[in-house]
Amino acid sequence: MANKVELSSNMEVRLKQLADLVKGEVRGETQLVITGVAGVREARPGEITFLANPKYVSDLSNTRASAVVLARGCPEELLHTLETGKVSVVLVEEPYFAFSQIVRFFHAQPYRPLGISPLASIGKGVKLGKDLSIHPFVRIEEHAQIGDRVTLYPGTFIGEETEIGEDCLIYPNVTIREKIRIGKRVILHSGTVIGSDGFGFATREGKHHKILQVGTVEVEDDVELGANVTVDRAALGKTVIKRGTKVDNLVQIAHNVVIGEDCLIVAQAGISGSTELGHHVILAGQVGVVGHLKIGEGARVGAQSGVAQDLPSGETVSGSPTMPHRKWLRVQAALPGLPEMRKQIRELEKKIQALEEILNRKEGNS
Amino acid sequence: MANKVELSSNMEVRLKQLADLVKGEVRGETQLVITGVAGVREARPGEITFLANPKYVSDLSNTRASAVVLARGCPEELLHTLETGKVSVVLVEEPYFAFSQIVRFFHAQPYRPLGISPLASIGKGVKLGKDLSIHPFVRIEEHAQIGDRVTLYPGTFIGEETEIGEDCLIYPNVTIREKIRIGKRVILHSGTVIGSDGFGFATREGKHHKILQVGTVEVEDDVELGANVTVDRAALGKTVIKRGTKVDNLVQIAHNVVIGEDCLIVAQAGISGSTELGHHVILAGQVGVVGHLKIGEGARVGAQSGVAQDLPSGETVSGSPTMPHRKWLRVQAALPGLPEMRKQIRELEKKIQALEEILNRKEGNS
Amino acid sequence: MANKVELSSNMEVRLKQLADLVKGEVRGETQLVITGVAGVREARPGEITFLANPKYVSDLSNTRASAVVLARGCPEELLHTLETGKVSVVLVEEPYFAFSQIVRFFHAQPYRPLGISPLASIGKGVKLGKDLSIHPFVRIEEHAQIGDRVTLYPGTFIGEETEIGEDCLIYPNVTIREKIRIGKRVILHSGTVIGSDGFGFATREGKHHKILQVGTVEVEDDVELGANVTVDRAALGKTVIKRGTKVDNLVQIAHNVVIGEDCLIVAQAGISGSTELGHHVILAGQVGVVGHLKIGEGARVGAQSGVAQDLPSGETVSGSPTMPHRKWLRVQAALPGLPEMRKQIRELEKKIQALEEILNRKEGNS
Repeated sequence: MANKVELSSNMEVRLKQLADLVKGEVRGETQLVITGVAGVREARPGEITFLANPKYVSDLSNTRASAVVLARGCPEELLHTLETGKVSVVLVEEPYFAFSQIVRFFHAQPYRPLGISPLASIGKGVKLGKDLSIHPFVRIEEHAQIGDRVTLYPGTFIGEETEIGEDCLIYPNVTIREKIRIGKRVILHSGTVIGSDGFGFATREGKHHKILQVGTVEVEDDVELGANVTVDRAALGKTVIKRGTKVDNLVQIAHNVVIGEDCLIVAQAGISGSTELGHHVILAGQVGVVGHLKIGEGARVGAQSGVAQDLPSGETVSGSPTMPHRKWLRVQAALPGLPEMRKQIRELEKKIQALEEILNRKEGNS
Repeated sequence: MANKVELSSNMEVRLKQLADLVKGEVRGETQLVITGVAGVREARPGEITFLANPKYVSDLSNTRASAVVLARGCPEELLHTLETGKVSVVLVEEPYFAFSQIVRFFHAQPYRPLGISPLASIGKGVKLGKDLSIHPFVRIEEHAQIGDRVTLYPGTFIGEETEIGEDCLIYPNVTIREKIRIGKRVILHSGTVIGSDGFGFATREGKHHKILQVGTVEVEDDVELGANVTVDRAALGKTVIKRGTKVDNLVQIAHNVVIGEDCLIVAQAGISGSTELGHHVILAGQVGVVGHLKIGEGARVGAQSGVAQDLPSGETVSGSPTMPHRKWLRVQAALPGLPEMRKQIRELEKKIQALEEILNRKEGNS
Repeated sequence: MANKVELSSNMEVRLKQLADLVKGEVRGETQLVITGVAGVREARPGEITFLANPKYVSDLSNTRASAVVLARGCPEELLHTLETGKVSVVLVEEPYFAFSQIVRFFHAQPYRPLGISPLASIGKGVKLGKDLSIHPFVRIEEHAQIGDRVTLYPGTFIGEETEIGEDCLIYPNVTIREKIRIGKRVILHSGTVIGSDGFGFATREGKHHKILQVGTVEVEDDVELGANVTVDRAALGKTVIKRGTKVDNLVQIAHNVVIGEDCLIVAQAGISGSTELGHHVILAGQVGVVGHLKIGEGARVGAQSGVAQDLPSGETVSGSPTMPHRKWLRVQAALPGLPEMRKQIRELEKKIQALEEILNRKEGNS
């Protein structure tokens, strides 16, 4: 059972070939042999690296890498330094994207089906696609459907009548409850739970009566959910995560939430019930969004913010309550001065009182 | 293995019968045939719906539902609009509670025992109740006790000497460690961990020495814990979650915490060690409570708040540090004005200086 | 299968022997028979207790314990009260550490290997140490290495080529992905995931392209990770948790993070990608740290804080953005006064305007 990405590689390639792959331009030795890809600090001779963050530009001068991917338009001075150090350069429009292609070139492995382990347990009426990799201790309940080339790692649970699309990769100990629909090429990391009951109770005379959560969850194509994420099934209707959205670890997605396409939801964020996010929304880490809101397309919310009202499309906000991000930066800059401000106000009050007394005296005198 | 709630139903019932069930009054056709229950937007002809949130009142005018549950005392205008649209109404005291009963009417299924899977592993001396549903890949350790009609889904672990009460429903991949006591009718969602070691270390010369966590956890009757919740066992003594309390996903409950009856703890909240919550406390999402506090009965804490001192009964607080919720609203409203306030203070200082100079000049002149 | 800590004990020991064990001094009956250890409130006659928190000093006067561990230098008055109540005292330098030793004395159990369950699934080429305890439904993938005396509870997954050091204790439903290195005496609580893919995407024309995460994770000796923790594998290179660090439940550790030795990371904290923590750093509950930062040795961050810039060694900070903790306390104390301050500023403006008008009038008059 070995169908995962190989972490090392014996591939060799000329720098020119890599440059062609990423539509880049070589500055240096086009015929250089490149044997792998690594971080700026870890790279060894023969390897190619890239600059992930301008913060690390100084690391470049010490790198042992033989080549580096950089953005077109980077300072000539930097190129000169690298030339002096005999580091070849590949100039591209989007270095991070080019880097992702190079990593994929060296590390992507073709999918190889492992078959169905005799230690898996598969219920009656389950429809199985072809070329599957079903590991030991997987349980698939009655009438579920598993698409072609799906990988189910050990400890995965697929509920009754749930459908898993083609080419999904489901890591160990994932739980997908009954009647859920998972699209194609979805990646689910370990410990993630899809279709748990939403948090719905009708309180009467101080007691909380469970509202049966009889809706479902739809996870569309090309979604990736991190580890230990929770996605609750709808009370009625469905919770939806649309095509291409990526969710980090330990995120909470409540019942009846709808997340648009190509969103990024960073670790430990939480979205309360029935809130709808448009496409391309970004929630940074530990953000909380209250229920029944509409977050417009392309809105971005800064880390640890608390969103308590609808956000228009394209807004960038921070804070709790949220405000425009630039305003929030000014507020945060002012905040440490608050005790001093309070002191200043008291002093101003005293000075004004003194002035008033002087004037009153004068009035009295005059 | 199919003992979970059916998500669709072929039931049919007259509107009058549903109204009787929820002690409501029909305005419209008492003999209407109702075939199911659905959300305002999703409901089709023949279905009944309800108004979950006043925000959605406008959706009612477009609903295709044949009937709707509303609160007695709702605006006559709304009733008139619905009458015009041929939507029958059931008026009740508590629409949300009535709705929960109607969902249950259409969707609740009687429990059917599935027996004990030959792929489960059951230790020596385990006491098993009757009419159980024990799925494949469940492991029950020595001397545990499982009550009647308990469902243990795949991947569930029950530790040594742990007791599970009657009618519990434990979803896939739940871990319940050794010597834990779970009451009756408890629902535990997937990935939840009960009885992990509390975070207790004695630090000496910079090294952290583990304090064995030799206490336990008691989860009383009718508690429900969401997905990926963590409840640590006590250092000594016990961590307790009392009757009827409902906990949402990804909540942290530390060692020796005591949570009263009928509390609601919303997603991603965290309660530090030895803190005690009274009955009917509500912690909103992402709240943090520091250790060794007492939170009084009926206290409510707003989302993302940080509770750092005891709270009296009945208080509603927000913020970090917490303050009365209404005060917090005013502080939050003032906060975006902080940079402007700082500017105003500087201007006031200048003006006062100018006034002082004028007066000084006058003094000098006079 | 019963190799876990026994929660009760039939041991008996003289108080003098316990005092010798913890290098303490007895005030009272040295020959007292002690039968166990318990909390101040729960202790019964014959048991020894300790004072965990000065908050609970009043509980001591009601304890039924026969002996108590206290710090040298505690008030003579307290000692007198205990003497009157016939409670013997053991005086020590570090009561919490002494307590941890006493708990261990009564409750630690020697490790007893359970062997390898026939219901475990072990891949080709796996190297198994001796005296193992491998429970049912454990899956170990090809070419993994398991050190001597390792315990793997049910539902644990060990990925291909992963190495687990000696004496590790891995609780149920833990996932350790491929090519990870776990040191010796590491404790991993249930639901924890090590080596899930980091959250890395190159966005191009609004679509997020996965960057294969081809790095690894190293967890050094004596680390303990709580329940439902997530530790992502590096994009390239490795994510590292160094010797002796203790991590609480539901913590997120992103790709390429490096955590120093003997750190304490409290529940629900999150550390973003590539951030490095020095030794002895403490992050309190629900703290968030943004990516690519350096947190100096011994820095301490207060609960719910958001760290957005490098922290020097030894700093104690709070807030978001963080500021020195004492300053933050003053800011938090001032915060509820903000609406009042705004009002005061308005009043000051009016008063100054009035003064200006008086002066202008005078100018005009003169």
